[in-house]
Amino acid sequence: MPHRVLVGGGWREPRHPAGSFRATDPATGTALPDEYPVSSWADLEDALEAGAGASFELAEAGPDRIAAFLEATASGLERRSDALVATAALETGLPADTRLRSSELPRTTGQLRLAAAACRERSWCRATIDTKLDIRSRLGPLGGPVAVFGPNNFPFAFNAAGGGDFAAALAAGNPVIAKANPHSPGTTRLMAEAAFEALTASGLPAAAVQLLYHFPAEDGRRLVSHPLIGATAFTGSRTAGLGLKEAGDKAGKPIYLEMSSINPVFVLPGSLRERGAEVAAELFASCTAGMGQFCTKPGLIILVDCPESEGFLAGLSAAFEAAGPGVLLGRGVLKGLEAGVERLRRLGADVLAGRGTAEGPGFRFRPALFRVPGDLFLQEPALFQIESFGALSLVVTVRDPAGMLAVAASLEGQLTATVFSARDGSDEPAYAALEPILRRKAGRLLNDKVPSGVAVSPAMNHGGPFPASGHPGFTSVGIPAAMTRFAALHCYDNVRQDRLPPELKNGNPTGRMWRLIDGEWTQRSL
Amino acid sequence: MPHRVLVGGGWREPRHPAGSFRATDPATGTALPDEYPVSSWADLEDALEAGAGASFELAEAGPDRIAAFLEATASGLERRSDALVATAALETGLPADTRLRSSELPRTTGQLRLAAAACRERSWCRATIDTKLDIRSRLGPLGGPVAVFGPNNFPFAFNAAGGGDFAAALAAGNPVIAKANPHSPGTTRLMAEAAFEALTASGLPAAAVQLLYHFPAEDGRRLVSHPLIGATAFTGSRTAGLGLKEAGDKAGKPIYLEMSSINPVFVLPGSLRERGAEVAAELFASCTAGMGQFCTKPGLIILVDCPESEGFLAGLSAAFEAAGPGVLLGRGVLKGLEAGVERLRRLGADVLAGRGTAEGPGFRFRPALFRVPGDLFLQEPALFQIESFGALSLVVTVRDPAGMLAVAASLEGQLTATVFSARDGSDEPAYAALEPILRRKAGRLLNDKVPSGVAVSPAMNHGGPFPASGHPGFTSVGIPAAMTRFAALHCYDNVRQDRLPPELKNGNPTGRMWRLIDGEWTQRSL
Repeated sequence: MPHRVLVGGGWREPRHPAGSFRATDPATGTALPDEYPVSSWADLEDALEAGAGASFELAEAGPDRIAAFLEATASGLERRSDALVATAALETGLPADTRLRSSELPRTTGQLRLAAAACRERSWCRATIDTKLDIRSRLGPLGGPVAVFGPNNFPFAFNAAGGGDFAAALAAGNPVIAKANPHSPGTTRLMAEAAFEALTASGLPAAAVQLLYHFPAEDGRRLVSHPLIGATAFTGSRTAGLGLKEAGDKAGKPIYLEMSSINPVFVLPGSLRERGAEVAAELFASCTAGMGQFCTKPGLIILVDCPESEGFLAGLSAAFEAAGPGVLLGRGVLKGLEAGVERLRRLGADVLAGRGTAEGPGFRFRPALFRVPGDLFLQEPALFQIESFGALSLVVTVRDPAGMLAVAASLEGQLTATVFSARDGSDEPAYAALEPILRRKAGRLLNDKVPSGVAVSPAMNHGGPFPASGHPGFTSVGIPAAMTRFAALHCYDNVRQDRLPPELKNGNPTGRMWRLIDGEWTQRSL
Repeated sequence: MPHRVLVGGGWREPRHPAGSFRATDPATGTALPDEYPVSSWADLEDALEAGAGASFELAEAGPDRIAAFLEATASGLERRSDALVATAALETGLPADTRLRSSELPRTTGQLRLAAAACRERSWCRATIDTKLDIRSRLGPLGGPVAVFGPNNFPFAFNAAGGGDFAAALAAGNPVIAKANPHSPGTTRLMAEAAFEALTASGLPAAAVQLLYHFPAEDGRRLVSHPLIGATAFTGSRTAGLGLKEAGDKAGKPIYLEMSSINPVFVLPGSLRERGAEVAAELFASCTAGMGQFCTKPGLIILVDCPESEGFLAGLSAAFEAAGPGVLLGRGVLKGLEAGVERLRRLGADVLAGRGTAEGPGFRFRPALFRVPGDLFLQEPALFQIESFGALSLVVTVRDPAGMLAVAASLEGQLTATVFSARDGSDEPAYAALEPILRRKAGRLLNDKVPSGVAVSPAMNHGGPFPASGHPGFTSVGIPAAMTRFAALHCYDNVRQDRLPPELKNGNPTGRMWRLIDGEWTQRSL
């Protein structure tokens, strides 16, 4: 008997399900016992209608109750931590203790609490008041539910029911229709249970959080383009993302996507000379942590041929070669890596380390490192830069700094771009030439530091030019910045004081909220 | 001999032009003497390449020089005011003195100067600094030129070469490729001359402003989706806008569109009772000013049948009936109005006033007012709400306040929605029910005031949910808000102090710029 879906204000049987599925234990390759429904359009339609109704009620409920709900969800996740960690470890193969319990779960509850604080404090909505003309505006809810599609690699932090997009959409005042990642339905169910319990306790509309486990791709496109939808947030593969984007765009519905990135790392000659071994060790860790299954894994490392580059490569290769095999998130990731290995071989890249698919049950892989000369890379830059999600990276060696510029110029939009450079100033000319090219290619530019950590900071950008994301102006990580994706600009022209939302009335609703009044950011009341 | 285009840093002959065209004097219907080229892809390609180069140089030049350029452009327009007003009056049929010289031209130069001030002051870029993690971000240039497609109804204020989008794109640090509206090529040429002169004087890259007069629609789609383009701003018809949107979206290139709106005005019963005649007079003026050729013209007026509504309608009808014919912007506007009249008749609406197409040379029309009962409107809401650009409005009379809610709920996304209500409080229940529906439909909500004025204020929203615009979070009018459309979020993670852009270094670059440092908006230096 499949699990129930969370639709229309409660857990219920799916209506006319299109089928059912089970998750797979990636360490063994065997199906896990729990059965989950594949919803048909009937469930999605119900969710849309209930979500649209909830969007009105949520606007009524106001920020304080939404904030309390987000905090209660965080506490509910903590109360369920044992079950969550055990289920997520089983469904994803990620280490229970080093990763899920002590790193990702606190990050997730932290995000929920930051979103709650931002929601309560209200500065995120950029209230702008022109006292002379009596025109006032702020960012407000979209007026419909936000569909959130969660990825497979962060079962908590990016979970559709409790992760970053969920927190941002609700904190901005919108109901959420969560679409579980089919790799981790059990984890998502537990998270949605925590959220639903918190919803009931906080007196918010019961349909403000809904959960579907799976549905056909065509119903996904119908969902994101439906008149009742507010917006969509998607993190996942480029193919799936582009299909949803086309549907959402056509209907004029905002859709935010995080789709792919190879996160180029340029190691300038001076930094190789000063601390090549150190950089190699940092890069190895960044390429292989979590079996490389991060959106910000360095997939491309660019070096200038020089006396130090061979030693650096030998060190990096040795580290890759010594790395044991690891369990991947699922069959799809393994297939993708195998295709990546095959593509790089076919294109003429040399294997520096890694034997690819590893022995043992389930989906296992040994971190792999390839190398290609810059000239060859530049013959097929589009093919060489196809993302291989997982522990597979490509080193490009170029003859001179000009080769680095050519490689940089050939890149698609990226989440990150990194430059390691010398402390003694010898790399400054190369940096100065490279920076303007990389700056327009990547959402986040790093110096002397690997890109794989994505801090939850108001200054973070986890986004970037297409196809890294769908719009270069928004980030999916960082509170409150991520909330602004799920908002419409609401202007009030000559609207009577008692009809204005609290954020735009003369009095500052929290006493702490920052507002732009006649060109000045201030916390004062009018 | 056709005029030259402004491409690649100077005025030059078009390369392989696809043809030529002349503008039409709408008051006479005859072609004006000047001939302008229809560019082929060769000109667009040159413009893209030169624009991409200029985008690097513009980033180098910095805000102070860009601001000086914008101010010099404003002065250049003032020096050319006689020629500009005469040419625009000839090409558009708009009144030279009451409208073009004393209203629209000052608005245009004012916008340029506001953009210059915002550019110099820099707060627009929302610099955000996390000192603990040393992560810093701000909005920065897109890294490619912005294509601006100007509409036919504001020959100065929305001109592709000198109007609001032009000012916003450049103030945000991006070159502009202007596409003239084919109704006003001469006006656009004069504006581009002023801009190009200012460019040269200010030492900015000569390809930071380029101008093409016309090109085939398929080349427009190729332009907005080209890898070298930064973004696109379009103001015009829904058909043309949707074609460009599809192309831009598919390539993941930001495209901002202002496409259509019927700007519903709900006149609640109490306001009819208190000041019906006054409201009728204001509405008549708003529907017919500029022959109704405004994006924010009230195209739909909704009333509850009540003792006062018949008197109100009689007054409004009489005003329309007494209105003389006016010259339209061109044949397309007249054809559109004729089609609108025909559609409303066919759908069963009653003519309250206006005989449609007027006698005389050129393109002339008499303001027209139709009426339809709410029940009939609700049978075909999609057809009844097709925008008729120009002086044609439709009154919907409903039986009770619930009918108003049903009409409101049936509307597409709008730039504006207006409610007139009583001062004595009697309309409050109706307002409270209507507001949540209208709020999610419109970018700007007005009380007791017609929507046709669009003040240039930081709190303005000239935008709204699709299909009024392409994204509900952005405005095309209002400095600095409009600038943020033409920006990418640039994050700097652990980037060395001397490599940061001035806005993110520890010292405040202007001493006045507002920055969000560790959660606090401040003008201080670190």
